[in-house]
Amino acid sequence: MTNQNYDYDALRAQMQALLAEKRTTGLRSLLTEMNSFDVAEFLTELREDSEQLMVLVYLLLSKEQGAEVFAELDTPEQELIINSISDSQLGAIIEEMYVDDAVDLMEELPANVVKRVMRAATPETRTLINQYLKYPENSAGSIMTAEFIDLKKYMNVRESIARIRRIGEDKETIYVCYVTSADRKLEGVVTVKDLLLHDDDDVISDIMDTNVIYTHTTVDQEDVADLISDYDLLAVPVVDKENRLVGIITVDDIIDVIEAENTEDIEKMAGIVPTDTPYARSRVLEIWKSRIPWLLFLMLSATLTQMVLTHYEDALAVQAVLTAYIPMLMGTGGNSGSQASTAVIRSLSLGETEPSDVIKVIWREIRVAALCGVTLATVNFIKLLAVDRLLLQNPAVTVPVALTICLTLVLVVVFAKMVGSTLPLLAEKIGVDPAVMAAPLISTLTDTVSLLIYFQFARLVLRI
Amino acid sequence: MTNQNYDYDALRAQMQALLAEKRTTGLRSLLTEMNSFDVAEFLTELREDSEQLMVLVYLLLSKEQGAEVFAELDTPEQELIINSISDSQLGAIIEEMYVDDAVDLMEELPANVVKRVMRAATPETRTLINQYLKYPENSAGSIMTAEFIDLKKYMNVRESIARIRRIGEDKETIYVCYVTSADRKLEGVVTVKDLLLHDDDDVISDIMDTNVIYTHTTVDQEDVADLISDYDLLAVPVVDKENRLVGIITVDDIIDVIEAENTEDIEKMAGIVPTDTPYARSRVLEIWKSRIPWLLFLMLSATLTQMVLTHYEDALAVQAVLTAYIPMLMGTGGNSGSQASTAVIRSLSLGETEPSDVIKVIWREIRVAALCGVTLATVNFIKLLAVDRLLLQNPAVTVPVALTICLTLVLVVVFAKMVGSTLPLLAEKIGVDPAVMAAPLISTLTDTVSLLIYFQFARLVLRI
Repeated sequence: MTNQNYDYDALRAQMQALLAEKRTTGLRSLLTEMNSFDVAEFLTELREDSEQLMVLVYLLLSKEQGAEVFAELDTPEQELIINSISDSQLGAIIEEMYVDDAVDLMEELPANVVKRVMRAATPETRTLINQYLKYPENSAGSIMTAEFIDLKKYMNVRESIARIRRIGEDKETIYVCYVTSADRKLEGVVTVKDLLLHDDDDVISDIMDTNVIYTHTTVDQEDVADLISDYDLLAVPVVDKENRLVGIITVDDIIDVIEAENTEDIEKMAGIVPTDTPYARSRVLEIWKSRIPWLLFLMLSATLTQMVLTHYEDALAVQAVLTAYIPMLMGTGGNSGSQASTAVIRSLSLGETEPSDVIKVIWREIRVAALCGVTLATVNFIKLLAVDRLLLQNPAVTVPVALTICLTLVLVVVFAKMVGSTLPLLAEKIGVDPAVMAAPLISTLTDTVSLLIYFQFARLVLRI
Repeated sequence: MTNQNYDYDALRAQMQALLAEKRTTGLRSLLTEMNSFDVAEFLTELREDSEQLMVLVYLLLSKEQGAEVFAELDTPEQELIINSISDSQLGAIIEEMYVDDAVDLMEELPANVVKRVMRAATPETRTLINQYLKYPENSAGSIMTAEFIDLKKYMNVRESIARIRRIGEDKETIYVCYVTSADRKLEGVVTVKDLLLHDDDDVISDIMDTNVIYTHTTVDQEDVADLISDYDLLAVPVVDKENRLVGIITVDDIIDVIEAENTEDIEKMAGIVPTDTPYARSRVLEIWKSRIPWLLFLMLSATLTQMVLTHYEDALAVQAVLTAYIPMLMGTGGNSGSQASTAVIRSLSLGETEPSDVIKVIWREIRVAALCGVTLATVNFIKLLAVDRLLLQNPAVTVPVALTICLTLVLVVVFAKMVGSTLPLLAEKIGVDPAVMAAPLISTLTDTVSLLIYFQFARLVLRI
């Protein structure tokens, strides 16, 4: 694993010893040396033993560190702390927090706690938070922060650096500064690197880059993530409908967005309804609620396969051997389809494939499917006659039966790959999340068609 | 979609017009205004029409922009360019590139092209690249870059800023500087923000943070990504076995790592053998090669379900109605299992769950499974008697038959969720990638067990 110059495990052991001896002064000085991420980890661990102890240790932190650690905690721990501190302490935390973190907090807390927090904030902060809360969920507006550095284009490098030195302390990033007009319109961007590499008397308007890559408050956070990742940005500015600069989104927040969006995609692809709570912290009932909808839907939609099988009951009675290969055919169809749908879904979400590529994708998948189908059918034909007929001594596995199974196999793979690759593209086109068109749904679809193909070939080849 | 102050689509149209009129001067000045990412996009699009044209446009770029754009291109385009330029042009590109990008290039190019590129580089660059190529694939060493700013602890702020101004131009980041001893050991870290917020005469040793979060050359890139994401870093320093600072990894490279690792996980979870080529650029044979291994393996392992069904052929002949519900039971088992395995795999990869949590996970999954199983069984029991028996008028669906199906359902869901949640944890424990223990494998396992449970209940309830 990763090594750190300062060793979290050793620090934790030290802290636990100090805690046991109730030596708060030693504990406090140790805490100030730690990263807020690790302090949050420590508090979360502490909470498992004693909620009261967690709050007491939290209260040892300085105002600044307290706010930083608070932002790193999960909602249940945040709620515990809010419920244990005075309104003035709460107010101090809210004022120290970056607006985007405060907004995240408001979105997760129960309504009565939100009220108390909002009362504790200053009127300015309250207005700002309220304004942010109006942006749609997962939009650039909802994740941006108002703490950025703005410069004017008539300033020179010396004045700009002086301004950064004066107001930089509390900004999310000081390395990218935004040049705005008198009416707050975004005019350019200048990095601290640009400033340092120019002379003190150079003027911002000569240095700044006017080709600004920016985004709007209403843009989806996933698209913002693409911008930052494609153009290797440290931050992206966000403008409102009137093109006024209202906030920025920094790369560290975007990493969290990328991980969250990936988790959401992966969950959807497995037939799980995404929630905001991580699996490790979810309660049983929450997990049940996120899993049962798709299970129910898919179970009930299996009525289709059941009807096909009931319809061909007599055929199966004549050729009982066919039943044994149904799971293999359905399994291979499901796997072939989910490979194709997964590849397309991922490609869509990385922006490499567009819905307009549908013809290209289908043509490629047909060829892949033909290759896969023929490979599988050939191997299976040999296996049927060599293993099932000779080794396992099943005389019912005749050449016509093997032929029926293998012809079905080819067609099932082709059908599954075509459905698997086109459904996500279609979903994207009509504005549905393509991740839903994944393994579970594709399997249910291919299951039914596999059976229909199977019985058609059985009728054709075995004349049943 | 995202808006940009400068509009790529408009620029592209302009460039195509200039290209058509062969106005290279206009084209060149337009290109210099563009981001290297977009120029790379444009070149890749051009290539689809004419490879020669792509190379010609590339050659219009300045030395610096040429190197940047080159690094953004994919291997096929890079190869085309390498094959069309002189050795001295090639040498210039290599010298301008960051070492990590050059190393990426070497890892992907065919051996004969690598030889030519290496000959074109200066001896120093050649040594550096060779040294990097020795690090294991996907290790911190293989993705780090040597272009960082190092300071000494006896320097003051003024001297430090002067040094950054002098050597900062070509560094991957100037915002995080590393303080090293005479023997190149890492002693501390100082940001440009720290420098700007301190007085010119303050000494680095008083400002620097000695609690450096760093990593080793041999650490897996996924763990480096966790470090950067957990601690919100712009860059992480990399040290060798002797604890000497040898490179840094910046956040923009880590975003690519995160996306690549997520793609790899998702592919593995869908039974696709991961490759380095994105789906949109893969050739049919490559896709076939990445998909056929699991398809073959899973198809052949369906021999198990086939043997169970053959074994119970007579029982099915007596109660033919049972066959119709096999797909539903296997499907529900597969979906239940893959929900659990997906949740656990994702939780492991985000570092929220550890293999030691196995008891906690199993206990939670058993309760979730019991809830899901009972819900599904209840709904299905009603559906069997109301829809299948009454509406679809199938008299074979008796209460004992419905009971057999629903009892099986509960047990199948419990078994699937237990297997689905424990196998990934087991895999992680023994050092196998847990992502392999996903839907396809879990389904094949639960398919067989579902059938066995089904026939046991049938024997018990229906006495067949």
